[in-house]
Amino acid sequence: MITCWTHIVADFIDCNFSKISQLKMEWIKEEISKLIKINWLTELGNFYHYFWEDAFTWVIALAESHISIHTWPELKYVTLDIYVCNVTKDHSDSAKNIFEWLKSLLLAKEIKIQVIKR
Amino acid sequence: MITCWTHIVADFIDCNFSKISQLKMEWIKEEISKLIKINWLTELGNFYHYFWEDAFTWVIALAESHISIHTWPELKYVTLDIYVCNVTKDHSDSAKNIFEWLKSLLLAKEIKIQVIKR
Repeated sequence: MITCWTHIVADFIDCNFSKISQLKMEWIKEEISKLIKINWLTELGNFYHYFWEDAFTWVIALAESHISIHTWPELKYVTLDIYVCNVTKDHSDSAKNIFEWLKSLLLAKEIKIQVIKR
Repeated sequence: MITCWTHIVADFIDCNFSKISQLKMEWIKEEISKLIKINWLTELGNFYHYFWEDAFTWVIALAESHISIHTWPELKYVTLDIYVCNVTKDHSDSAKNIFEWLKSLLLAKEIKIQVIKR
């Protein structure tokens, strides 16, 4: 069995939610959709749930697997998973690019990151 | 920062897809919805994409985070993530129960499992 799936498991601690509050969620969604496309990934659909201001859960199904973002503004905490299949093409750099964009948005004081090869 | 999220990352290798083929996807969906409910988790919504027979991608948003299932019948391979937040209640056993049910369904010859505390 080849291991050709790249899974970025990232936890953003002590995020700058005041920064995120200045941005519109629709803009973030559009930017991520663009990022998915320019990084040779295919968005199949998503489910987004809004809890309250800045608290949301978002799962995006990709032809190559998924992205998920869960926020806990009361803990200044955001968790991110970017999971891509590399069967037909190596998408590891695509996953990294999306991670870097979200990292620049969240401005966390600490990031725990694991890259799992599945 | 407390670590109170349990993430089961499981890869099912050499699955019995002929067994899965005998079952209807609607039945699997209903059973998982029931399992989520009886295990004190809350399903917010989901996105399901059907590629072809037995090949699908499914992401389920929970109030406590998410479940994702991706299948590659051509590789006899299924990957599963069950990710739950334990802030208000410890849902680790709930995650384990859902994992065990899917394990009994997939009848994989080999399972790679990691339990990540986030």
